Amino acid sequence: MADAKEACGLFGVFGAPDAVEKTYLGLFALQHRGQESAGMVSTDGKEMTSHRGMGLVFEVFTPEVIQRLKNPSVIGHVRYSTTGSSNLTNAQPMLITCARGKIAVAHNGNLVNGAELRKKFEEKGSIFQSTMDSEVILHLLARPDPKGEEEAYLRCLREIRGAFSLLFLTPGRMIAARDPQGFRPLCLGELDGGYAVASESSAFEISGIRFLRELEPGEMVTIDSDGLKSRIFAEELNPTSCIFEHIYFARPDSTIFGENVHKVRVRLGKALAKEHPARADLVIPVPDSGNAAALGYSMESGIPLQFGFVRSHYVGRTFIQPVQSDRDVKVRIKLNVIRVVVEGKRVVVVDDSIIRGTTSRSRVRLLREAGAREVHLRISCPPHRFPCYYGIDFPDPDELIANKHSLDEMKEILGVDSIGYLGLKKMLECVSGPPDHYCTACWDGNYTVPVPDGLNKFSLEQ
Amino acid sequence: MADAKEACGLFGVFGAPDAVEKTYLGLFALQHRGQESAGMVSTDGKEMTSHRGMGLVFEVFTPEVIQRLKNPSVIGHVRYSTTGSSNLTNAQPMLITCARGKIAVAHNGNLVNGAELRKKFEEKGSIFQSTMDSEVILHLLARPDPKGEEEAYLRCLREIRGAFSLLFLTPGRMIAARDPQGFRPLCLGELDGGYAVASESSAFEISGIRFLRELEPGEMVTIDSDGLKSRIFAEELNPTSCIFEHIYFARPDSTIFGENVHKVRVRLGKALAKEHPARADLVIPVPDSGNAAALGYSMESGIPLQFGFVRSHYVGRTFIQPVQSDRDVKVRIKLNVIRVVVEGKRVVVVDDSIIRGTTSRSRVRLLREAGAREVHLRISCPPHRFPCYYGIDFPDPDELIANKHSLDEMKEILGVDSIGYLGLKKMLECVSGPPDHYCTACWDGNYTVPVPDGLNKFSLEQ
Amino acid sequence: MADAKEACGLFGVFGAPDAVEKTYLGLFALQHRGQESAGMVSTDGKEMTSHRGMGLVFEVFTPEVIQRLKNPSVIGHVRYSTTGSSNLTNAQPMLITCARGKIAVAHNGNLVNGAELRKKFEEKGSIFQSTMDSEVILHLLARPDPKGEEEAYLRCLREIRGAFSLLFLTPGRMIAARDPQGFRPLCLGELDGGYAVASESSAFEISGIRFLRELEPGEMVTIDSDGLKSRIFAEELNPTSCIFEHIYFARPDSTIFGENVHKVRVRLGKALAKEHPARADLVIPVPDSGNAAALGYSMESGIPLQFGFVRSHYVGRTFIQPVQSDRDVKVRIKLNVIRVVVEGKRVVVVDDSIIRGTTSRSRVRLLREAGAREVHLRISCPPHRFPCYYGIDFPDPDELIANKHSLDEMKEILGVDSIGYLGLKKMLECVSGPPDHYCTACWDGNYTVPVPDGLNKFSLEQ
Amino acid sequence: MADAKEACGLFGVFGAPDAVEKTYLGLFALQHRGQESAGMVSTDGKEMTSHRGMGLVFEVFTPEVIQRLKNPSVIGHVRYSTTGSSNLTNAQPMLITCARGKIAVAHNGNLVNGAELRKKFEEKGSIFQSTMDSEVILHLLARPDPKGEEEAYLRCLREIRGAFSLLFLTPGRMIAARDPQGFRPLCLGELDGGYAVASESSAFEISGIRFLRELEPGEMVTIDSDGLKSRIFAEELNPTSCIFEHIYFARPDSTIFGENVHKVRVRLGKALAKEHPARADLVIPVPDSGNAAALGYSMESGIPLQFGFVRSHYVGRTFIQPVQSDRDVKVRIKLNVIRVVVEGKRVVVVDDSIIRGTTSRSRVRLLREAGAREVHLRISCPPHRFPCYYGIDFPDPDELIANKHSLDEMKEILGVDSIGYLGLKKMLECVSGPPDHYCTACWDGNYTVPVPDGLNKFSLEQ
Repeated sequence: MADAKEACGLFGVFGAPDAVEKTYLGLFALQHRGQESAGMVSTDGKEMTSHRGMGLVFEVFTPEVIQRLKNPSVIGHVRYSTTGSSNLTNAQPMLITCARGKIAVAHNGNLVNGAELRKKFEEKGSIFQSTMDSEVILHLLARPDPKGEEEAYLRCLREIRGAFSLLFLTPGRMIAARDPQGFRPLCLGELDGGYAVASESSAFEISGIRFLRELEPGEMVTIDSDGLKSRIFAEELNPTSCIFEHIYFARPDSTIFGENVHKVRVRLGKALAKEHPARADLVIPVPDSGNAAALGYSMESGIPLQFGFVRSHYVGRTFIQPVQSDRDVKVRIKLNVIRVVVEGKRVVVVDDSIIRGTTSRSRVRLLREAGAREVHLRISCPPHRFPCYYGIDFPDPDELIANKHSLDEMKEILGVDSIGYLGLKKMLECVSGPPDHYCTACWDGNYTVPVPDGLNKFSLEQ
Repeated sequence: MADAKEACGLFGVFGAPDAVEKTYLGLFALQHRGQESAGMVSTDGKEMTSHRGMGLVFEVFTPEVIQRLKNPSVIGHVRYSTTGSSNLTNAQPMLITCARGKIAVAHNGNLVNGAELRKKFEEKGSIFQSTMDSEVILHLLARPDPKGEEEAYLRCLREIRGAFSLLFLTPGRMIAARDPQGFRPLCLGELDGGYAVASESSAFEISGIRFLRELEPGEMVTIDSDGLKSRIFAEELNPTSCIFEHIYFARPDSTIFGENVHKVRVRLGKALAKEHPARADLVIPVPDSGNAAALGYSMESGIPLQFGFVRSHYVGRTFIQPVQSDRDVKVRIKLNVIRVVVEGKRVVVVDDSIIRGTTSRSRVRLLREAGAREVHLRISCPPHRFPCYYGIDFPDPDELIANKHSLDEMKEILGVDSIGYLGLKKMLECVSGPPDHYCTACWDGNYTVPVPDGLNKFSLEQ
Repeated sequence: MADAKEACGLFGVFGAPDAVEKTYLGLFALQHRGQESAGMVSTDGKEMTSHRGMGLVFEVFTPEVIQRLKNPSVIGHVRYSTTGSSNLTNAQPMLITCARGKIAVAHNGNLVNGAELRKKFEEKGSIFQSTMDSEVILHLLARPDPKGEEEAYLRCLREIRGAFSLLFLTPGRMIAARDPQGFRPLCLGELDGGYAVASESSAFEISGIRFLRELEPGEMVTIDSDGLKSRIFAEELNPTSCIFEHIYFARPDSTIFGENVHKVRVRLGKALAKEHPARADLVIPVPDSGNAAALGYSMESGIPLQFGFVRSHYVGRTFIQPVQSDRDVKVRIKLNVIRVVVEGKRVVVVDDSIIRGTTSRSRVRLLREAGAREVHLRISCPPHRFPCYYGIDFPDPDELIANKHSLDEMKEILGVDSIGYLGLKKMLECVSGPPDHYCTACWDGNYTVPVPDGLNKFSLEQ
Repeated sequence: MADAKEACGLFGVFGAPDAVEKTYLGLFALQHRGQESAGMVSTDGKEMTSHRGMGLVFEVFTPEVIQRLKNPSVIGHVRYSTTGSSNLTNAQPMLITCARGKIAVAHNGNLVNGAELRKKFEEKGSIFQSTMDSEVILHLLARPDPKGEEEAYLRCLREIRGAFSLLFLTPGRMIAARDPQGFRPLCLGELDGGYAVASESSAFEISGIRFLRELEPGEMVTIDSDGLKSRIFAEELNPTSCIFEHIYFARPDSTIFGENVHKVRVRLGKALAKEHPARADLVIPVPDSGNAAALGYSMESGIPLQFGFVRSHYVGRTFIQPVQSDRDVKVRIKLNVIRVVVEGKRVVVVDDSIIRGTTSRSRVRLLREAGAREVHLRISCPPHRFPCYYGIDFPDPDELIANKHSLDEMKEILGVDSIGYLGLKKMLECVSGPPDHYCTACWDGNYTVPVPDGLNKFSLEQ
């Protein structure tokens, strides 16, 4: 699948002589969570300097830019790419000045009461320069609070609702927080003399940071020269983490929501083989996100795994499609079929999800052209039917294929001999937490944090 | 001179099918007022789209960008270049959303109570994302006002003090205003079905807009689909326009403060010849800003004008100085002396001003090397000794040569045989308004709008 | 492995209304054969226009460039990247004018008598603007030949020795040729009204060109408006194709030297498992080039395949290494280990080759850090000990780890528990041709085309 | 005027520790002679490294490029811009390898027997990669010559005919030569421990090189570690220098053909005033190339000089013309009229030449719109009617306004009240050499070096 876009990745380091470099590598390792823009805000304990730009981490952070940033404390952000509001104004982290001094914030997630809070501020005379929730959060934080700074953060975190993994930086401290539902992952790491925070644990390894633990849902961690201090800010906890992070978004080498992503995916593949067996000669993964589930499917079913697709490593983001008429070119350019592998064979294709269905259809066509005798599509989660208000940018529900068509119609449209989705209950058996500790809204519309009437995720767009 | 930087140029068009193009050409014609960044905010009456970038107008506005902007109403801005706070965050126009909807503003000038107002807002919990006065102005404007939108603008304009030529754009209207002192120029133009506003009248000609008149000091002009409406918002008027606009900044083909710039400069040159005659063979201008005054000097003195300096037309802003040791290379690369013109001659060099003196010294050295027998320096205004708080970015007073050295010392430092500055009184006789209608603070420290204690122009910088 | 660089990819189309687009897609599909520069020469039957640039296909061929090229006939080229002589002068195809008119050539391979021929030409007064064999070939071709053009090509092809797959274009024809040894692959394809030529058959599929057959060693094919004509130019044929194309370079979905690459690699993996079994828990491939051999190893040994490495898809070629001191960063940035997969496990790592050994060592270290209990390295070809003079850019023999160290030393250096290379004889059993139909020089120093004394592959470099 | 393009500028330094920097500054000072591409070839006495690129000197030579070039010997080149064959293949200097080793050449001028020589080489089997005469020259030079290297250069110089100022560089020497007619200027300079060569003397001053003398027509100067050696290679000398260099191309601060350019231009203006007086109120120059002649006209006529046009300093080469329909925008964007100067006045506009007439017409229109009562156009040379085969790129004769229209028609087309060209004889009286020592072919078709039948300057283009 390729049509759902994650809402961001966070990385921060406090108190490391090479914090800028570590953040650079950390953001690089989180690049899969956002490819539109990247940014860092850094501080030497007095001044704060920032840089944000459109593009991939290695494009935005040239040696000159790296040079201008300061150590020892930095927070960074990568942001996803959509057409609509893709511009520099909305790049993060956002850096502002207020009565408390300078504050920067980076946000992963989506507030369900962002628009409402924004409206309140506007009515009192506030101005907004972006369409980001981060700006609302900073307005909340900037309000005078007689009880002091920590209280201001707690008050702010208690007022916002929805999905938020947050990272704040001021000249003197770094603060990390995770919403009471724990929708998005957020991890804590340790290094000599300092601490680090990252959306996924695997982002620590590249620069030798030791993974400590995940932040708890509803927890706020304050890191300053006195060390680390933890507070539970949430009044009530009912964790419902985004299980789709396990299925698709997170890196397989990450630990999120208490367990390894790759392992979960292998289990999903096994469960899928049990629920939807197939009489076939081969199991082939859609590389690379379907690899682990395909392996699980192969293990359970005994059908041998084969590499039927070859992935191109040279696809630039600015690929020019010279032949506009041929709708398969975009898929062909990324993926080639090894004819001798599939020719005359009955193949099981294992993928993590189907969103619009266009890409799946093109892939099936490639297999057919290469002589596959039967194509059986197996998906390691249930059919996507509902929008996500907690930080994943699915297309409009009208464009979700499973929302418009029955399974039989989909078989026809996609050109497959059979199709099998992993059931919701079976899926939930593959993760180690209790079933009600996961959000399943995109499959069953069960929104664990109430979504205001009339909200849609584009409502803040200019 | 080259060390004083203007604080910006404004251009706006309301109600023209080719407003984007006209604004592009208008900003291009105002490029001399700011080379650091350029921006436009445009509207089709409903949506507003903006683009801002670092660089010259033709670099920032590529064909793709031009395409994305909307007609029929646009405001644009060019900004000066300094090292300190030169970044995209401070580029204009600034576009925000508030309870009144979307508002964009472009500002030329400098508020003396900007920091004070900003502090008040911060204390009430507001956040600031830039160091620009424009952001303060937008905060003022966004405050709820029961008396309606026009009143909100008037209230805002009455609260800010200092130098401001302003241009606002909303989906439905364009508003222009000029401070009660009329420090900076601002002109009104007319085109079929619409109106235009520009910092200088010459910016109209390039796209065939008819010059109507200058805005009055203290005037606010509202342009919408009903046409143009004027209001004097100032409670008290005591115009003190920046005469240095006539001497150096404005284009010679502009009409500002009631008269043509070129004509004023020729008069300055004549007065200079009367006050500081010289026994010389030639008058040579420092091109191009000294051309008109040199012509006046030549006319009055009868000493023939000659072109002793040739200006290079290929100096990019990113010029790489390969030979760091040679301090004259920067001047040599811009200006060559025609040896045969000056060899063995007594020359009068006419320039508009001396700021740090380093460039003047280099130029004199070039003339000496080319064999000039005597060099007499004549400056068409008095010696610069005080900072400007009304929108011109002079270097620190400590760096102003006339502030640190007597005329005799300057003669020595610059290597000239004589030096003559036009006297303050004589200078004021060259313009047509009453002497007290001009600001002369940079020469005599007489600040017509009180400057708060401890203010210095860098106080807002991050 | 990552230290051996292929010497180029060729693609050409004659007589297609969308030849430029097809060549763009074809070169894109051959990008793995060269990432340094890309170029095309095109003709409308009268004029010839060309474009060459440094970078990947999608970077060099912007829409503006694509627009300027002509249909219906085009040849294109991608070139490998090395530091030494990496510049535009050496980009291909080369386009010249001579008494025969305009001729363009693209070359994959390396001549062993290139320097000698070049010297002869220089002695007669010829000039050279590049260090490429292509220029020598064009000099040969430009010589007057009373017997006509075809004879000139044949004479040229008979004079050059070594590895050459060649593609020529003139306004009226396209000519393809392959050296008598058939070192490098070259394929013929067919499309409505025209023909295509490509280094690998898989490059045809992306644009729907039908694969006809491979060119024979020693064959020259001429394509013009009369169709296709074949000639065997070689006086003697003793094919010795580069088996390393099967092991590493070619795409798994290509057919070269009569069989599918993926299939050969699976066989290599099986043979490797037989020759060098291991007591282990997992087989993990080095992605993506080790995938097929690892699959074969797993099949044969019964040890389950697992994905222990995750490959990053966002590594730009201009990656900035911020932490210079850490030698593993470059590997870490491309490859992450899934800790839970390897922790406490005995793993067999299957790779296609070891060149310098530095990358292998880093990978092993990653596995150890992730808790792998034992690491058994298995290589699907023999140890590399000799330079290639036929078109592959191996590092200097002194830098080949197997050339300097015994297997025991290598075990130590690489930090593995065991190491096993596939034997030469076993390797040759995995391909379908007779053993003496393959070149094995890089393993056994048996050069099938004599290499002149004192030749080294850098001898032509400026 | 702006429609005639010079064919290049040369600069070279032999034996200076900062040769690269000096060449950078020298090319910068010669930028007016070519804005399309720039290049340098440098040597440390052993290796030669080169860089060429499209664009202005400061764009092509980034700090990284400057770093890669070698001292102490460098030759550089700037090339003009046309649409047709504007590409990197034709950038100079050209660097080749031949039996003599490495040789680089930079050329200013145009050979009349270039095509003929090229044909001869092609017939003998030579290949050509560009359309430049430089390549022909290198072929000539590469021929074996039993008499040694110097003789090879002399033989080459004696075989080429037409306009050529040449600069060669090898690891051991720099050679400069000027054609027997001395069409294009070429100067010799001296610096501590070395020598320099430049198209114009003014290019020396920027880096403190001492002007020694001009090369003689037909002279070849060899500079190596033994110093400087001069030879006259021409068998016959009949100098006919391009007087248009004085009128338009060269910088006013240059000394060429024995005298200062500015002085010649002032004399041309005086002569023009005598031959074509005008009853007018003002003389205004077309800046900057008309400045000196306008000054002369004013001196002679007693009509005061005024600056009626203001030149923009921010016109980038990539200016986007947003309003395609308005044909004056291109002129307006470069030049503004000061209305108060010309309003109600009778003005004499002094320009150096009229080529197509379109720019002149636009300028006159600007003056009329600004209220000029009468416009009298005065041109400081005769009407252009013939092509130049000696290095200046005039448009096709069909596009020369004076070739298609009578003076009366031109008056009408350009919209002027009178028009006056300086007569050929009068023009020749303004330079100090004998009249027959100047080429006047572009005015009278008198080609002093015979031009082969059928030659036209585009004949070499691909």
